[in-house]
Amino acid sequence: MGQITVMRVYLAGPDVFLPAPLERGAALQRICAAHGLEGVFPLDPLRGGDWPEWDGLPEAFRIARRNEAHITSCDALIANLTPFRGPSADVGTVFELGFMRALGRPVFGWSNTAKAFADRTRAFIGGTVDADGLSVEDFGLADNLMIEGGIYSSGGGFFAASVLDGAVWQDLAAFERCVAAVAARLVR
Amino acid sequence: MGQITVMRVYLAGPDVFLPAPLERGAALQRICAAHGLEGVFPLDPLRGGDWPEWDGLPEAFRIARRNEAHITSCDALIANLTPFRGPSADVGTVFELGFMRALGRPVFGWSNTAKAFADRTRAFIGGTVDADGLSVEDFGLADNLMIEGGIYSSGGGFFAASVLDGAVWQDLAAFERCVAAVAARLVR
Repeated sequence: MGQITVMRVYLAGPDVFLPAPLERGAALQRICAAHGLEGVFPLDPLRGGDWPEWDGLPEAFRIARRNEAHITSCDALIANLTPFRGPSADVGTVFELGFMRALGRPVFGWSNTAKAFADRTRAFIGGTVDADGLSVEDFGLADNLMIEGGIYSSGGGFFAASVLDGAVWQDLAAFERCVAAVAARLVR
Repeated sequence: MGQITVMRVYLAGPDVFLPAPLERGAALQRICAAHGLEGVFPLDPLRGGDWPEWDGLPEAFRIARRNEAHITSCDALIANLTPFRGPSADVGTVFELGFMRALGRPVFGWSNTAKAFADRTRAFIGGTVDADGLSVEDFGLADNLMIEGGIYSSGGGFFAASVLDGAVWQDLAAFERCVAAVAARLVR
């Protein structure tokens, strides 16, 4: 019998800012495991440990290097694109999505808001252009076009759900649909 | 005499949403040219034209592909990281920053706000954690740690200025300091 290789999926998202981030990571990883995937959470120790050349880096830059190394070690990425403190997703998450897209591997996203980006933005700025005259991007997408454009071009997928306001950071149904799609793409 | 190669710098930013985006792009490109660099603005036509395989793509996804191809054709990237509709930079810009970081080329950033990310975020959410209990990242940086972490690791640089509220989308002094740093890094 051949060796079994479990595909690794990086779990990008502002989930690390939740009150119990390790428990959240474990919950996401259980869902991945149920679909035959290994979920890699940003707070996981790095496979093989931190690089000696990172000694002396400020903590923030060491975390950034570790996350980049986690992503590079994975076969795909799932981003929690639920809007975060404004009309768009968390920028750290989107940096990581762009990073993985440039590596040429499939990127996926999910969000607990199904409302269109343009509608969310207009509600946020209270009009069709903001005070400085900047226009609103309106292509009927879920967020800035680089995000869904990158997901589409990579052969990934995007999954949105409408959930109750209080459940935005709890409900994992859209995440699980996303994981199932990653599994269908990666696991033979 | 040998051939002169002009280094190309991708100009990421929400500048494309300004009321006169082509004029804005030309202003940024004049500053690049004064420092011996070719600035590539997202709205520029693609060198060699769009790829035939993009025929039939929805406009938004075609723009995303074109921007990715622009970035891939450049030697470095400068991101306008001025906060955009919330405490953080524009997510499209940050996607592109992460994309170029993964290509291993130098990424630079500038912002017309010198206030720390944590202070901006606390002002936005009106406290130290938000209504859903999500914590505020506080490493004394200008935005999420992936951004400045990626800039630092790439050998790039970040330049911030404090400008009057009404000049946030006009003042180009921090941008010019950033361009000078890119030139010092790339132009021999």
